[in-house]
Amino acid sequence: GAGEGAPPVRLWVRRVGVYCDEHRKTWLVAAEEEAGTLRARIRRVRVPLGEALCPSRLPPSQLPHMWQLSEGEQYRDSNSRIWEIEHHLMVRLGELLLRLMPSD
Amino acid sequence: GAGEGAPPVRLWVRRVGVYCDEHRKTWLVAAEEEAGTLRARIRRVRVPLGEALCPSRLPPSQLPHMWQLSEGEQYRDSNSRIWEIEHHLMVRLGELLLRLMPSD
Repeated sequence: GAGEGAPPVRLWVRRVGVYCDEHRKTWLVAAEEEAGTLRARIRRVRVPLGEALCPSRLPPSQLPHMWQLSEGEQYRDSNSRIWEIEHHLMVRLGELLLRLMPSD
Repeated sequence: GAGEGAPPVRLWVRRVGVYCDEHRKTWLVAAEEEAGTLRARIRRVRVPLGEALCPSRLPPSQLPHMWQLSEGEQYRDSNSRIWEIEHHLMVRLGELLLRLMPSD
């Protein structure tokens, strides 16, 4: 099955900056505009799902209400715009758990 | 060389809950006490390094000012206490960067 690293098939907006995928996992999305090119940086971050805001009640945004993975390395959004996957990477975070040994 | 996932050789406290390693990378540290056993959960998280607080000005803590990796799967702290590595794992986080294609 799709691992933690697989790109989401669908992303729906939950509230400003927070999207949720088909597994109800949360993603933080930030718009980046540079030299007339709009990019969306989408990071898998565990945040409370919270209540979904109705998209019509969200403030105007350059970001869509929904993205859907399309054939090829692309997403199509709820405004029928095409987004190319520029990169899809895994950020590896180390976690260390230490246990204090009893002193003799 | 040591990758992103290698355990740090030394960790120094910067401020409450934030430690920095020999590569000036930041780690968030939380104490967890359960049934008389003290554990330190140490996560590699990029936060601003900020100014280092003098350890003597930090509030009292069960956590040491410094850990140093020792032979075996252990750390020795600045109070000469021994900490066993209970686990060392990689948390994988996905990041997706999408670029809006120009509409023709």
